[in-house]
Amino acid sequence: MKTIFITRRETFNAAHRLRREDWSDSKNDEIFGKCSNKNWHGHNFELFVTVKGLPNPDTGFVINLKDLGSIIKENVIEKIDHKNINLDVPFMSGMMSSTENLAIGIWEEMESLIENKGGELVKIKLIETENNYVEYFGGKEPF
Amino acid sequence: MKTIFITRRETFNAAHRLRREDWSDSKNDEIFGKCSNKNWHGHNFELFVTVKGLPNPDTGFVINLKDLGSIIKENVIEKIDHKNINLDVPFMSGMMSSTENLAIGIWEEMESLIENKGGELVKIKLIETENNYVEYFGGKEPF
Amino acid sequence: MKTIFITRRETFNAAHRLRREDWSDSKNDEIFGKCSNKNWHGHNFELFVTVKGLPNPDTGFVINLKDLGSIIKENVIEKIDHKNINLDVPFMSGMMSSTENLAIGIWEEMESLIENKGGELVKIKLIETENNYVEYFGGKEPF
Amino acid sequence: MKTIFITRRETFNAAHRLRREDWSDSKNDEIFGKCSNKNWHGHNFELFVTVKGLPNPDTGFVINLKDLGSIIKENVIEKIDHKNINLDVPFMSGMMSSTENLAIGIWEEMESLIENKGGELVKIKLIETENNYVEYFGGKEPF
Amino acid sequence: MKTIFITRRETFNAAHRLRREDWSDSKNDEIFGKCSNKNWHGHNFELFVTVKGLPNPDTGFVINLKDLGSIIKENVIEKIDHKNINLDVPFMSGMMSSTENLAIGIWEEMESLIENKGGELVKIKLIETENNYVEYFGGKEPF
Amino acid sequence: MKTIFITRRETFNAAHRLRREDWSDSKNDEIFGKCSNKNWHGHNFELFVTVKGLPNPDTGFVINLKDLGSIIKENVIEKIDHKNINLDVPFMSGMMSSTENLAIGIWEEMESLIENKGGELVKIKLIETENNYVEYFGGKEPF
Repeated sequence: MKTIFITRRETFNAAHRLRREDWSDSKNDEIFGKCSNKNWHGHNFELFVTVKGLPNPDTGFVINLKDLGSIIKENVIEKIDHKNINLDVPFMSGMMSSTENLAIGIWEEMESLIENKGGELVKIKLIETENNYVEYFGGKEPF
Repeated sequence: MKTIFITRRETFNAAHRLRREDWSDSKNDEIFGKCSNKNWHGHNFELFVTVKGLPNPDTGFVINLKDLGSIIKENVIEKIDHKNINLDVPFMSGMMSSTENLAIGIWEEMESLIENKGGELVKIKLIETENNYVEYFGGKEPF
Repeated sequence: MKTIFITRRETFNAAHRLRREDWSDSKNDEIFGKCSNKNWHGHNFELFVTVKGLPNPDTGFVINLKDLGSIIKENVIEKIDHKNINLDVPFMSGMMSSTENLAIGIWEEMESLIENKGGELVKIKLIETENNYVEYFGGKEPF
Repeated sequence: MKTIFITRRETFNAAHRLRREDWSDSKNDEIFGKCSNKNWHGHNFELFVTVKGLPNPDTGFVINLKDLGSIIKENVIEKIDHKNINLDVPFMSGMMSSTENLAIGIWEEMESLIENKGGELVKIKLIETENNYVEYFGGKEPF
Repeated sequence: MKTIFITRRETFNAAHRLRREDWSDSKNDEIFGKCSNKNWHGHNFELFVTVKGLPNPDTGFVINLKDLGSIIKENVIEKIDHKNINLDVPFMSGMMSSTENLAIGIWEEMESLIENKGGELVKIKLIETENNYVEYFGGKEPF
Repeated sequence: MKTIFITRRETFNAAHRLRREDWSDSKNDEIFGKCSNKNWHGHNFELFVTVKGLPNPDTGFVINLKDLGSIIKENVIEKIDHKNINLDVPFMSGMMSSTENLAIGIWEEMESLIENKGGELVKIKLIETENNYVEYFGGKEPF
């Protein structure tokens, strides 16, 4: 069984802050440092969505990248691109906008939609800056 | 047992098209979109070949990268670089030239040759554009 | 006068070959090497289009990037993306499809259209592979 | 006279919006599109600062990169990193936070400080996303 | 259980050589090629350190990247950056300075320190050049 | 006259140090910092060589990149790759191995050889790390 993992990249630009209103300024600064700036900061995010499956004998495709791209654009990019993650994004409402939580939120927006197209979502990778990124395998721990 | 995974990158440039002659133009266009252009298009591919093993106590090497590089160049790059994947590449003959199938074809060209050098091929990653790539673990599903 | 240079990147994937039918196979091979493969090869091209001007006091813009993006997409990308440069691209008809000639052809497709939007096209940079690119300043020689 | 151009890169992450309060929502949307989102968005900016001069015979240096790095960090990065360009950055106060204006503002913060260290600032390059960047030569038009 | 994998990148520049004094020049050349040059050569290394865990409900963090960054800088970067791996780095003393061994040495410097901060080190990736890198999972073999 | 600028990239890995034996350790440390480490350090250098000219009507080429590549490899890369810039490289003998001086040295190795092939060398760009690079235009100051 020649399972293939296929990944599509999309990008978005968004503002956010890491700040708890139930904490003092000094505690916010101690834990979140400059990420807690009241007036926000932002990033160019890179999102990699990985789906696994067997190549279709007729097309050679695990999933049609046009379909996968549409799912990502309609359900993630349109909701978050050029937005404020804390204020504007329904699926992040009430959560700390850490990269960790954002990756989980993005997974949950798309998992069943990808399954409907015959693919299996297996990984979200989200690059926040050239120096840090997170990966989420739906809770699995491959290593 | 301190197993290490070592990866070597090579690049190649090739033409291809995704098109079934047993399908109508409109069906080809529906499924493959602009990738079905009759007169071909092409890509700069990046190929990452990963081998695992224990570092040799004398050399610190899992596999000599000169040997691994030679295997990749002689068995993959020389057969595909500056070629037409559909027309010129024996190991892709009769297959759809999707990135998925290409990764499988490349694995099968090299698996036993790498084993002969004392390494174990464990992953092929093939980047087609900055927005999509595939990974093949020889059929394994690490996640 | 605070002249600013602004650059927009677009990408396209295309097939081509460097081959003269009025030359023998051996001369084609001597001059063009593997780029002369009869059955084509291809690349992921990166195109950078630079426009200069003064920032508009109301918007801070030299040119609206939406307008510049539309000009590039409609006049270059749609004509060349997922195409064969030698066979499918009217503005390259009858020319060798070298990166040099392609940069000149792209300039000539867009120069007056950008001027109509109040910008001045000053540079085309075209990356063919990670190891080679060309720049064209409309014939000027800044260095 | 062997003039050398030396460039140092620094990065910063910031929020901003392109929006005129004296314009209607629909005009803001027409001109600035999604960049006018009321609740901000943001970017990872890459800043390249170029200084020219003759290599010092004792050190081989045009300018000591430690000195250049300190000037950039103290006068630009500390004022803008993890901030809101529209609200938090004194040198951008009252200006549209376009990439064009930001490059000019950064130049003006540093020009005389670099001259004090014996260097001549000749270029600011500011990358906002992988698809757009601006260059400012202090008003000069090399091409 | 929503386990997240978070990665921090750091860079360092170092000299080294692959050479056994108990081997002849010709055997060193046969096995290590130009990497055995007596007078050393060097690289810009990129180090990626991956930690897994559950996001903290208060912060959204698996581990505070400031803490992880400090561990990497104090225990790896300060010992190896702008150094000679063979001569200057205590944790590589007596070992071949292959990328494989370097990844293992870096892991062993940090594993318990990361555990003390509540994280679990699960992967070291070390890029030596754009054409080769190694990964070490603490001896585990996820694929 | 449609002058085109064409650039070829090559890479090399080398050790060096910035250190004057006629200076005290503390002065070396003050001026050169960690770059003065006695036991060397090293880098992956990226070299970009730019040649200008008119495209040949028969080939579309300003210069044949095979010829340009051969000149760079034989006269620069073979002399410096996997070497110690201070000890092993004849054209840097007696000079501080700063990136500035290295760019000038590389220019002087190749200028006349490129002219013999009908091209005009107009720029050397040398990237030492992702955070610094130099450019040399043969003494010209385009900006």
